[in-house]
Amino acid sequence: MRILSGLQPSGRLHIGNYFGMMEAALRLQHEGEAYYFIADYHSLTSIRDGGTLRGHVRDLAIDFLACGLDPAKCVFFKQSDVPEVVELSWILSTVTPMGLLERCHSYKDKIARGISASHALFAYPVLMAADILIYDSDIVPVGRDQKQHVEVTRDIAIKMNEAFGAGLLKVPEPRIREETAVVPGLDGQKMSKSYGNTIQLFEEPAALKKKIMGIPTDSTPVEAPKPTEGSTILALYKLVASAAEYDAMVGDYQRGGVGYGEFKKRLLAAVSDHFTPMREKRAAITADEGYVDRVLAEGAERARAVARKTLRRVRDAAGLS
Amino acid sequence: MRILSGLQPSGRLHIGNYFGMMEAALRLQHEGEAYYFIADYHSLTSIRDGGTLRGHVRDLAIDFLACGLDPAKCVFFKQSDVPEVVELSWILSTVTPMGLLERCHSYKDKIARGISASHALFAYPVLMAADILIYDSDIVPVGRDQKQHVEVTRDIAIKMNEAFGAGLLKVPEPRIREETAVVPGLDGQKMSKSYGNTIQLFEEPAALKKKIMGIPTDSTPVEAPKPTEGSTILALYKLVASAAEYDAMVGDYQRGGVGYGEFKKRLLAAVSDHFTPMREKRAAITADEGYVDRVLAEGAERARAVARKTLRRVRDAAGLS
Repeated sequence: MRILSGLQPSGRLHIGNYFGMMEAALRLQHEGEAYYFIADYHSLTSIRDGGTLRGHVRDLAIDFLACGLDPAKCVFFKQSDVPEVVELSWILSTVTPMGLLERCHSYKDKIARGISASHALFAYPVLMAADILIYDSDIVPVGRDQKQHVEVTRDIAIKMNEAFGAGLLKVPEPRIREETAVVPGLDGQKMSKSYGNTIQLFEEPAALKKKIMGIPTDSTPVEAPKPTEGSTILALYKLVASAAEYDAMVGDYQRGGVGYGEFKKRLLAAVSDHFTPMREKRAAITADEGYVDRVLAEGAERARAVARKTLRRVRDAAGLS
Repeated sequence: MRILSGLQPSGRLHIGNYFGMMEAALRLQHEGEAYYFIADYHSLTSIRDGGTLRGHVRDLAIDFLACGLDPAKCVFFKQSDVPEVVELSWILSTVTPMGLLERCHSYKDKIARGISASHALFAYPVLMAADILIYDSDIVPVGRDQKQHVEVTRDIAIKMNEAFGAGLLKVPEPRIREETAVVPGLDGQKMSKSYGNTIQLFEEPAALKKKIMGIPTDSTPVEAPKPTEGSTILALYKLVASAAEYDAMVGDYQRGGVGYGEFKKRLLAAVSDHFTPMREKRAAITADEGYVDRVLAEGAERARAVARKTLRRVRDAAGLS
C-alpha cells in the first residue's frame, strides 16, 4: 500500500505543527510504503524569494529527519526534483473541466482572505492530482480542508482512464486525518506563526525558558486551588509529560499549595526532555554537511523512477511519444 | 535574432494552409534563427487519441520538410520533446494573475463556439508564454487572433523579471503577420477542412483531377466572355501560375472562345507543376524510413540545450535548485 503525503515548506516548525501534522505524518512510515515530498512547486505560490524557499526546504527536511523520518523506510524527496509531475499535470489539465476547479473551496477561501488570485493558486488542485497520480498512490491522508482536492484527483483520474484507457491511472482513496487536539500557544489561543505565540520545535534553551516562564497566568494565590479548565500550562504539559506526571499536576492544581512558577518549571523540564533526543539527532544531522542533500538526492532518484514509469504510460496513451 | 513559430498538428495540410500559414512560416528561416515546434502538448486539448496525434505530428513534419523547411538552417522539433517548457509554465503561473487569463478572447471565443471548457484550454496562454520565453525568442510572428497571447507573454515576462530579477527572461516582440489572401475552396467558400472543400497539398493525381474538373462553373457558353470576378478557377490559378500565364487566362476569360473545361485543364497542370518538386521531395523523405525521426531528434537536442539553460536560470532564481 503506497501512502503519499506532501509537506509545505513554510519555515521552522513549532510544537503546534509537531503535535498536529508532523506526528501523524511520521506514523505513516510504519503503515505502508510512504512517499513524502517537500512541496516546493506549490510554495512558489506564496514565496517569491529563492533564498527563503531554499532555506525553508532545508529546515523542513532537517526537522523531519530529526523527528524520526527514516529515509531507509520511506521515500523522502523534493517535489521539484521530479519535474515529470508538472508534465503530467499539463496532460491532466486537458481532461479537467474548468467547473471542477471553479468549485474548489480552498481557492475561493484564499481569494476571500485577500490572497491575490494567481493562476498557480487556481491550478493547484491539478498539480496536486499529478503529485498523487504519478506515484500510483493508494492512500492520501489529508485534513478535512483538503478532502475536496482528493475528490478532484479521483475525478481527473477517472476522466483520464475514460479518455485514454481503463487502468491507466490508479484512482486513490482519501483518508481523513482525525482532527488532532488544538495545541495552545503561549497566549492561550491556537499556536500559530501568524499569532506570534509559538514555541519553536528546536527553541534555544534560554529562549524556551523565557517563553515558558512568561506564560500569562491568573492571580490565584499559591495556597489556593487553581482552575484546570483553560490552563495553557496544563494543556501543553499533557502533550509532553507521562500520564502519571500529568495526573500529578492536575492534582496539585486542584489541591492548591503549588504556585504557577513551579508548574512552569515542570513544563519547561518536560518540554526539554521530550525534545532532547530530537535535538541531539538534529545536531548530528547538521554536523554531517552533505547528509540532507544525500538523503533528498536518493529519495528523488527512487521517486523519479516511479514517476517516469507512470509518465511514459500516459505519454504513450496520449500520443506524445 | 531568434524567431519562434508553433505549428498545430491538425492533420494533412491543404493548399489553403500552404498559401496561408506555411509559405509565411517557411520564409522565416531566411530572416533569422528560426525555431519551429510542432505543438503537440497544445493539441492534446482537442485530440484524445494517441494514434491520431502521432499521425498528425508525423504528417506535419513530413509536409514541412517536403515544402522546404531546412533542418540545417533552423531548429525543428516536437514541443513534447522538451518537457522543460511545462515546468517553466508552472513557475510562470505563480506570477500570472487570473484576470490576465480571464480576459483572453481566444478562450472565450472557443467556449462560445461550444468547445468544452477544459483547464488546459484556459491555461493555454501560459504554456504559450513558456514556449516563447524558454527559447529567449526575440520575435513571434502571429496572426491577429494570437496577438493578445503575445501581449500576455510580455506581461508575464515583465512580472517574472520584477519578482525574480531584471533580465531573467527576454521580453519578446510580436510581429503581426500580414493577412494573406483567402484561398478559395472548390465550392468558392474559404478553403477549410470543416467545409470539405479542400485540395490536399499532396493530393493523389487522380483525385486532384477529379476535384479540379468538378469545380462548379456557371453556364456561360464557350464562345462568350466569362466573369472573372469570383471565379474560383482564376483565384486558384493565380496562386500557382506565372504572372504571364495568369494574365493570359484573364484575357481568355474576357475575350470568350475558351470553355471552362479548358481553363480547368490549365489549372490542373499548373497545380501539378507547382507541387511536383515538393511531391518528389516528399517521396524521398518517406522512402528514408528514419529521416523524420532523426531530424526531430536532432532539433529536440538543440532546442533542449537552450531550454535547459533558461530553466536553470529561472529555477535558481526561484529557489528550486
